[in-house]
Amino acid sequence: MNHNELETKGQRAKEAAVFLRTVSSGAKDEVLQKAAEMLIDKQEAIVRANGKDLEEARKNGIKGAFLERLVLDEKRIAGMAEGLREVAALHDPVGEVLSMIKRPNGLMIGKQRVPIGVIGIIYESRPNVTVDAFGLCLKTGNASLLRGGKEAIRSNQAIRQILQEALVACDFPAEAVQVVEDTSRESARAMMRMNQYLDLLIPRGGAGLIRTVVENSSVPVIETGVGNCHVYVDSYADIDKAIAITVNAKTQRPGVCNAAESLLVHKDIAETFIPEVCKALAEKQVEIRGDETVQKLYPEAVPATEEDWATEYLDLILAVKTVGSLDEAIRHISKFGTGHSESIVTENYTNARAFLNRIDAAAVYVNASTRFTDGYEFGFGAEIGISTQKLHARGPMGLNELTTTKYIIYGDGQVRE
Amino acid sequence: MNHNELETKGQRAKEAAVFLRTVSSGAKDEVLQKAAEMLIDKQEAIVRANGKDLEEARKNGIKGAFLERLVLDEKRIAGMAEGLREVAALHDPVGEVLSMIKRPNGLMIGKQRVPIGVIGIIYESRPNVTVDAFGLCLKTGNASLLRGGKEAIRSNQAIRQILQEALVACDFPAEAVQVVEDTSRESARAMMRMNQYLDLLIPRGGAGLIRTVVENSSVPVIETGVGNCHVYVDSYADIDKAIAITVNAKTQRPGVCNAAESLLVHKDIAETFIPEVCKALAEKQVEIRGDETVQKLYPEAVPATEEDWATEYLDLILAVKTVGSLDEAIRHISKFGTGHSESIVTENYTNARAFLNRIDAAAVYVNASTRFTDGYEFGFGAEIGISTQKLHARGPMGLNELTTTKYIIYGDGQVRE
Repeated sequence: MNHNELETKGQRAKEAAVFLRTVSSGAKDEVLQKAAEMLIDKQEAIVRANGKDLEEARKNGIKGAFLERLVLDEKRIAGMAEGLREVAALHDPVGEVLSMIKRPNGLMIGKQRVPIGVIGIIYESRPNVTVDAFGLCLKTGNASLLRGGKEAIRSNQAIRQILQEALVACDFPAEAVQVVEDTSRESARAMMRMNQYLDLLIPRGGAGLIRTVVENSSVPVIETGVGNCHVYVDSYADIDKAIAITVNAKTQRPGVCNAAESLLVHKDIAETFIPEVCKALAEKQVEIRGDETVQKLYPEAVPATEEDWATEYLDLILAVKTVGSLDEAIRHISKFGTGHSESIVTENYTNARAFLNRIDAAAVYVNASTRFTDGYEFGFGAEIGISTQKLHARGPMGLNELTTTKYIIYGDGQVRE
Repeated sequence: MNHNELETKGQRAKEAAVFLRTVSSGAKDEVLQKAAEMLIDKQEAIVRANGKDLEEARKNGIKGAFLERLVLDEKRIAGMAEGLREVAALHDPVGEVLSMIKRPNGLMIGKQRVPIGVIGIIYESRPNVTVDAFGLCLKTGNASLLRGGKEAIRSNQAIRQILQEALVACDFPAEAVQVVEDTSRESARAMMRMNQYLDLLIPRGGAGLIRTVVENSSVPVIETGVGNCHVYVDSYADIDKAIAITVNAKTQRPGVCNAAESLLVHKDIAETFIPEVCKALAEKQVEIRGDETVQKLYPEAVPATEEDWATEYLDLILAVKTVGSLDEAIRHISKFGTGHSESIVTENYTNARAFLNRIDAAAVYVNASTRFTDGYEFGFGAEIGISTQKLHARGPMGLNELTTTKYIIYGDGQVRE
């Protein structure tokens, strides 16, 4: 691999970050608008490059959902441009002073939101991530160094070319966004050790990619996305709400991280609830994998194994288990959950409070679908991912989560006694 | 090394964290008070164990500041107990809801402070860190796994014994605090890979320890403490303030990370300011290492080399450089600073604003000593360290920084359309 490429791009990103740190919100929004306009105007170049990526991918036997995600057409390009316009319309968090205190010695100490600096993103073969990541990073005054999958390299470079033209047209340094040309495994490994240039590394993609980055990166990482989410139907649940929430959490979009993968049902409500919910799920083509009680109450259920409780299916399959108590449900979730989104369905005040307090996850729900864990649904607007770790950011990461803070201190000659 | 020790302690810490997550503030404060009382009552056991550590250390040729930091006597033990009482008196941040919004669909989405979970701390041979870290972690509902230096192992175990007795006396699990017995290099390395059990790892100690942890840990790390701090005296500086601030920042406690290591002086003020400030510094036994202009204006100055600009002396030495402009000062700080604490001395409004905006550091000062970057001075109370990285926490880390957040969502049956 070409070590020089990353070294050079790292240096340039750091220089661009110095420029971005103090640029006005208006100027950044202008770039976003310009880039949106140019993506539409120059879409032919993108479609052409994408065509070559698709041709190569087909030649290599790639098909199905993977190939589908790689496609850029007029509609997708319009969506990417619209995404940039939406980010431009959001409030810029940079510069906001979150608090300012006056100390007894007269020092005024403020905590101000500032850009993080240079953000590296390692992702797979969805070229739309190139535009999304650029938009969110630029809006928050961060330079971005993007490394997408090798299958999308031509598409990503065509997009990069347009984004850099938009930057330059607005008197910004082109290196505010850069795309790594070397898509080898080694370039990803090298990015994970670029502490000198990268302030943060975000992996976006499947569980394998995320694990590799977490295990090998000395650059601070934010872990995103793996979700083995549960719906727990308490003995005090309203059956109609419980059915609606379970069906929604499982089927509204089964392939995403906030979809439910397991349903826990209190034994006292199992007899009524399980046949009904399984019927409603079956209508949506959901396969049920159940414990013995579930198999008795719904004979079409496939017997569940221990592995089912730990599996993120991302598919129309639901593991269903009966539990003897709220406590057992909480212990099951603590053992098998990934700390993403967990929901209790209950009309009981004390049980709702216990679940909210005792479950350790990014988002804990009472009487609502886990599918709401999302930047737009939380009212943040576009998100860069959903953090399932505990440091810096937890849950949907919007613009605020792409900033850090610094203390600004106004004195009049104070010295420490 | 004994892999079983860490595995067992990791598991137990995780179990203790489940208990600590929901325990009341009152109960935690009771433990802190009890531990303070017992440290005093049982100080003989600590002093005895410490005596053996000191004997061994002397046998191994350890002396000077290192040996001095290892000593535990009546006064130091009283200080440790007092530290716990002070932490007990602080406001408990756990449970606080930082914001709660109501979405158009009626969902109420709150962001609540919660404990991080299990915090690992790797430190050197200051046994007082054992008590400090225990107190801050317990107050914030976190279990702690502490690995001190081998020279302090007997002292640390004696302290641990007392802290655990206090926990048990208050019906807390003893494993809310644990001290790693294996002080080999391998045990530190193994802690850095304990992602299954540790939510956060904090290295406390010298630059070498911190670098090793940052480079080798797959557990999220907070980097603390390295400070190459600058005072920049602008052409518009008030000379008296500039002298007082420079002398204070350098000499009030030269061995700590927020002490100044370099002084930058605008050329237009150099002729008046440099002889005066150097004289004042000389009275405090500070050695001056200067560029050519400094050497001319203060002949006692030692010629500075490029290396001096990058050195954290932690000693009575100050590197002094003249600069042609504010811009040159900012570029110098950006190149050589470690992002800790930086101060400008000026009466000029625009220059003060430019410095505050353009310097990228945890704490940026106008007309005040860099020595204020400290949990107590910022009004947070006790701190676990001063973060010089950008994720999660930046600057002094008090109790708030030892918490994470989770979203708590109150619904009435909402599902996603």
